[in-house]
Amino acid sequence: MSTIAPLTDPESHPRVKAVFDDIRATRETDFINNLWRYLAFDPTLLENTWAEVKRVMAAPSSLDPLTKELVYITASIINGCSYCVHSHTAAASAKGMTSEQHAELMAIVGLAAKTNQLATALQVPLDPVFDRG
Amino acid sequence: MSTIAPLTDPESHPRVKAVFDDIRATRETDFINNLWRYLAFDPTLLENTWAEVKRVMAAPSSLDPLTKELVYITASIINGCSYCVHSHTAAASAKGMTSEQHAELMAIVGLAAKTNQLATALQVPLDPVFDRG
Amino acid sequence: MSTIAPLTDPESHPRVKAVFDDIRATRETDFINNLWRYLAFDPTLLENTWAEVKRVMAAPSSLDPLTKELVYITASIINGCSYCVHSHTAAASAKGMTSEQHAELMAIVGLAAKTNQLATALQVPLDPVFDRG
Amino acid sequence: MSTIAPLTDPESHPRVKAVFDDIRATRETDFINNLWRYLAFDPTLLENTWAEVKRVMAAPSSLDPLTKELVYITASIINGCSYCVHSHTAAASAKGMTSEQHAELMAIVGLAAKTNQLATALQVPLDPVFDRG
Amino acid sequence: MSTIAPLTDPESHPRVKAVFDDIRATRETDFINNLWRYLAFDPTLLENTWAEVKRVMAAPSSLDPLTKELVYITASIINGCSYCVHSHTAAASAKGMTSEQHAELMAIVGLAAKTNQLATALQVPLDPVFDRG
Amino acid sequence: MSTIAPLTDPESHPRVKAVFDDIRATRETDFINNLWRYLAFDPTLLENTWAEVKRVMAAPSSLDPLTKELVYITASIINGCSYCVHSHTAAASAKGMTSEQHAELMAIVGLAAKTNQLATALQVPLDPVFDRG
Repeated sequence: MSTIAPLTDPESHPRVKAVFDDIRATRETDFINNLWRYLAFDPTLLENTWAEVKRVMAAPSSLDPLTKELVYITASIINGCSYCVHSHTAAASAKGMTSEQHAELMAIVGLAAKTNQLATALQVPLDPVFDRG
Repeated sequence: MSTIAPLTDPESHPRVKAVFDDIRATRETDFINNLWRYLAFDPTLLENTWAEVKRVMAAPSSLDPLTKELVYITASIINGCSYCVHSHTAAASAKGMTSEQHAELMAIVGLAAKTNQLATALQVPLDPVFDRG
Repeated sequence: MSTIAPLTDPESHPRVKAVFDDIRATRETDFINNLWRYLAFDPTLLENTWAEVKRVMAAPSSLDPLTKELVYITASIINGCSYCVHSHTAAASAKGMTSEQHAELMAIVGLAAKTNQLATALQVPLDPVFDRG
Repeated sequence: MSTIAPLTDPESHPRVKAVFDDIRATRETDFINNLWRYLAFDPTLLENTWAEVKRVMAAPSSLDPLTKELVYITASIINGCSYCVHSHTAAASAKGMTSEQHAELMAIVGLAAKTNQLATALQVPLDPVFDRG
Repeated sequence: MSTIAPLTDPESHPRVKAVFDDIRATRETDFINNLWRYLAFDPTLLENTWAEVKRVMAAPSSLDPLTKELVYITASIINGCSYCVHSHTAAASAKGMTSEQHAELMAIVGLAAKTNQLATALQVPLDPVFDRG
Repeated sequence: MSTIAPLTDPESHPRVKAVFDDIRATRETDFINNLWRYLAFDPTLLENTWAEVKRVMAAPSSLDPLTKELVYITASIINGCSYCVHSHTAAASAKGMTSEQHAELMAIVGLAAKTNQLATALQVPLDPVFDRG
């Protein structure tokens, strides 16, 4: 199904192995999901992508880990990435998302889609109070 | 700029006035933003949209109010609704979003957009462990 | 393939059974398609979604049923929902869409995508006559 | 606001004038809206785009003219083209769209956006009956 | 998986055969990919779509063939068309895209997605120097 | 129009000044466009975004600078970022894009949007030859 052929033995490549090792250490798991296995076709792309994921998602933050995953799921749905909807729903569950929270997230995403389309359809003009500069 | 002509005196229409009054009471403010003023061209559409916003965004919930607004901002950005990006950024600020949290939200949305596109570009196959049924 | 585990016996849950029964009665068929079987993981989400579908799509309307399905197919294509493209193409066929109409719908959707992109690419300014207020 | 400089006197260019004349004759109006004035920066692009619009939107069809505009508005909203939402809402009004029909279109587009997102979020598997081959 | 039933013997239809023959002659290959086999359900749609692909992608041009495919891949990713991402990545490879170029394309598409979202999120006002008219 | 208040004197902040100086040196111009002036509300976001733009767009590459801008324009159109369509069309012009090339890019983007939607609408199954693994 992929557009590229994944590496047969990715960890025989030192740069790939270094990233995989850091993923395992950071996430405290042996599991390396397919996104990283496929990005490994280009070590530079792999390294840069992981460095950003680690910096944005795994470093200390003013947002709690579950909130960050809820935002990531939302983006993945609307950007239409089936793989990412799966991987980030699983990540949110691992970080404690309940079934009730999952359903409420769905309700917000669905409502936002609706009001976003309505405001675009009507071309509602901006209230001056919302303009910051 | 709008695709419809807004009502000249919306609150002279009883159904519109009832919705506006409920918005004011629910949000504890006199301010009615333009989305509602323009939706008022059709009282049924206005009533149904507000009922859903009130139910999803203002009722007791397993997600805290700020998290819900962060999700709404995310959806509004990706759905490309300029009006909604403005109104929900303002709502998040009113609910306590700090400048640091705003910047971290930007970092997550930007990263998600990138990895969403990468997974789509490579057509990464689903890890079986992510499939729930 | 799903991100949630569907209920094993959804109709043993009274709230789910009530919605499924109403779907069967409204659509005059015994068939319950998967969207409803999966939404059943949260009865509130299921009830609210079905209530809106019934109100918007099945109630008397100033638009005929086939036109409504053509609009729904169009939205589903552009929103990138594979499941929905399938289910609403089937619904339109059931409401009488001919192969010729299907092909003409494709031609309009394809043309709209093109001119939408061209107007965005050139950032064509709005003709004042199109502004309603 | 545009990304290109429009022609100062577009109708002094014979290929542009020929297209503008055909637009006027086909639409039975003297008005040439800005999309065509800006596409005129490249006569080939102008000619090809107009030829397709004329063929798809103005020729005899198995879909009625208003239905075609409702589909075009829907596409324009979801593709996020502000200019096109304006021009096709105006075109639909000129072809008889009532305010009630406009509001019902909004309700369908909003509902479709919601259920499209829900089906993507849950990754609902395809019902075999919807698969045509 | 498709929403339409493909023709059993498409080349028994003269209009379909004529298009397939022209595809083979233009591309210098016997292979007809599925997009054309499915569009064949409507000969008019098939003819018009192929005529445009031939004109835009196969005629002499001020852009080289590989650049055109890179643009097509980019569009296919963002428009969320899985089939098209596959077919145009294959086409780019056939026109000489190296693995390094593929990875650099990914980096640009990912970066663009990020900065596009950031500019939308902040609603950055247009620099006057970018406005052409 | 913005959702944030830009800094009054951004270059009085050392981290902001360092980025602005690097933009000027890298691009060999005194002009700092608004994207950077608004991102300056958060120095970390500014630094990280610029570092990536510099790495991806300004470093030696297997793709030529104009091709990279054509890809960026394409992404900006489809992601619906008005600001970015403007800034990258200007950047492409500065790197030598002719009016003819601009028009051909429009034709490709428009065609891709059309065939992307058609393939999604018909849910065309993948040709096995396009699957790399």
